[in-house]
Amino acid sequence: MIDTIIIGKGAAGITAAIYLKRYNKNVLVIGKDFGALEKTVKIENYYGFPTGIDGKELIQNGITQAKHLGIDVYDEEVVQIDNTLEYFLVTTPNHEYKAKTVLIATGKKRSPINVKGFKHLQGKGISFCVTCDGFFFRNKRLALVGYNDFMLHELSDMELLTKDITVFTEGNELTAPVKHKVVTDKIIEFVGDDVLTGVKTENGSYDFDGVFIALGTPSAADFALRVGAILDNNNLVVNASYQTNIEGLYAAGDAIGGTLQLTKASYDGMMAAMHIKNKLNDLKRLSK
Amino acid sequence: MIDTIIIGKGAAGITAAIYLKRYNKNVLVIGKDFGALEKTVKIENYYGFPTGIDGKELIQNGITQAKHLGIDVYDEEVVQIDNTLEYFLVTTPNHEYKAKTVLIATGKKRSPINVKGFKHLQGKGISFCVTCDGFFFRNKRLALVGYNDFMLHELSDMELLTKDITVFTEGNELTAPVKHKVVTDKIIEFVGDDVLTGVKTENGSYDFDGVFIALGTPSAADFALRVGAILDNNNLVVNASYQTNIEGLYAAGDAIGGTLQLTKASYDGMMAAMHIKNKLNDLKRLSK
Repeated sequence: MIDTIIIGKGAAGITAAIYLKRYNKNVLVIGKDFGALEKTVKIENYYGFPTGIDGKELIQNGITQAKHLGIDVYDEEVVQIDNTLEYFLVTTPNHEYKAKTVLIATGKKRSPINVKGFKHLQGKGISFCVTCDGFFFRNKRLALVGYNDFMLHELSDMELLTKDITVFTEGNELTAPVKHKVVTDKIIEFVGDDVLTGVKTENGSYDFDGVFIALGTPSAADFALRVGAILDNNNLVVNASYQTNIEGLYAAGDAIGGTLQLTKASYDGMMAAMHIKNKLNDLKRLSK
Repeated sequence: MIDTIIIGKGAAGITAAIYLKRYNKNVLVIGKDFGALEKTVKIENYYGFPTGIDGKELIQNGITQAKHLGIDVYDEEVVQIDNTLEYFLVTTPNHEYKAKTVLIATGKKRSPINVKGFKHLQGKGISFCVTCDGFFFRNKRLALVGYNDFMLHELSDMELLTKDITVFTEGNELTAPVKHKVVTDKIIEFVGDDVLTGVKTENGSYDFDGVFIALGTPSAADFALRVGAILDNNNLVVNASYQTNIEGLYAAGDAIGGTLQLTKASYDGMMAAMHIKNKLNDLKRLSK
């Protein structure tokens, strides 16, 4: 059993890992992509680098730093967190990990499809979580937007509900074949007055009862939906101890909103680690 | 008239300077010594450095970074702040500077134990921070010097690392009992050639791998006292905007207490800069 699984290997996640490791906790960092920093060309306002530093380089530095301290950093996509057991079960395409606590530090990016009708029909036929909302769409015509492990994981849940599934890749290449109709051109409109009735792409029009979006990497908001954590404006809501409304589930960095700065993300990571350390010590005491 | 004079050129001061400069404010950093960081041999828990970084080197990096962005950093000792005029008058042995606002980011001078071997073995077995350096002393024989809440907090972190702990109270009474061996007589020598191997007290000799000092917490912000800034337990008291009870006088970093970590100091600097920027904009509006 791992003490803390940290999802996300940016400033918040890695800083938390370093502090927890130094508190002698057993910690694992899992993350697939680099989030917002990856596209930041040059960072000049993070303390300690005489002429600034490239965002990608800084993230690599952080990962190397963690590994140097003996922390495992796995390059995997977390597709699910299950909190219905006596521990957290964190699932990637090829592995399952058990943990006492989980820290979500995935950054803020959520892949929206900001086309006509998206905002209007969100929650009215557009959904982000098959486990959460799929039940309403049993035996209906469903679209699933995505192309990688995240989509495939949602697909396996969706296949339990209906046979009428179309996958929209938004121009991306599928990372594994699917046994459903696949549309590769981009969605340009979600159609519907009160509820969604279909989508339009660059080259066609399709009727659907529901569209599920699982595009790119699951965001903090995606995880929150799946475990029932409270969101406010797509930010994970945490208390003063960086804990969400789910006992043992913490969040830090851009995922919880506030100032979207590296310095703040790193600070969050440190503070969250201190509170998680206290929680782990409490658990230890209680289990004696 | 300078917009903001920042006293202290460590993580808090330099980070604040960088943010203020980027808000287009006219800012000057003044500081003489390097504070606690200077003696930290190796920092491993500040995000972004693959194999850690030497404290002195990091401070130099920060100063270079600020200068690179066009910020003046003066190597002078601030001996007085006068707030009885319509501006702040900041005095060094050879100069006077006028500023609309002042940020105190001098760090926090820690209680030394000026006996034989102390200076020599500082950073070589004598440390001031369990969170910072404890990791190197897992399962070792440790001494903890202190008697109050500060010591007790360090003790709870130390207990995660080792069972072999002796508390030295330096003649003070413990404010709460501890479940470890307690030595009340004063340390008269730190023993060791290249690294610490033990301590001598008035009445005995003890072998240790490390000594952590958490003895009181005297303030480095002596001049803050001279302007009537409120202190609590030697920390400068600030409001949510990092402003002291003196209008226009701000403080950040170790000087305001809390977690004495680089990551937090830098975060403070950023946050203080945001609030100072708002204050300067208000002043500008009011003077029109």
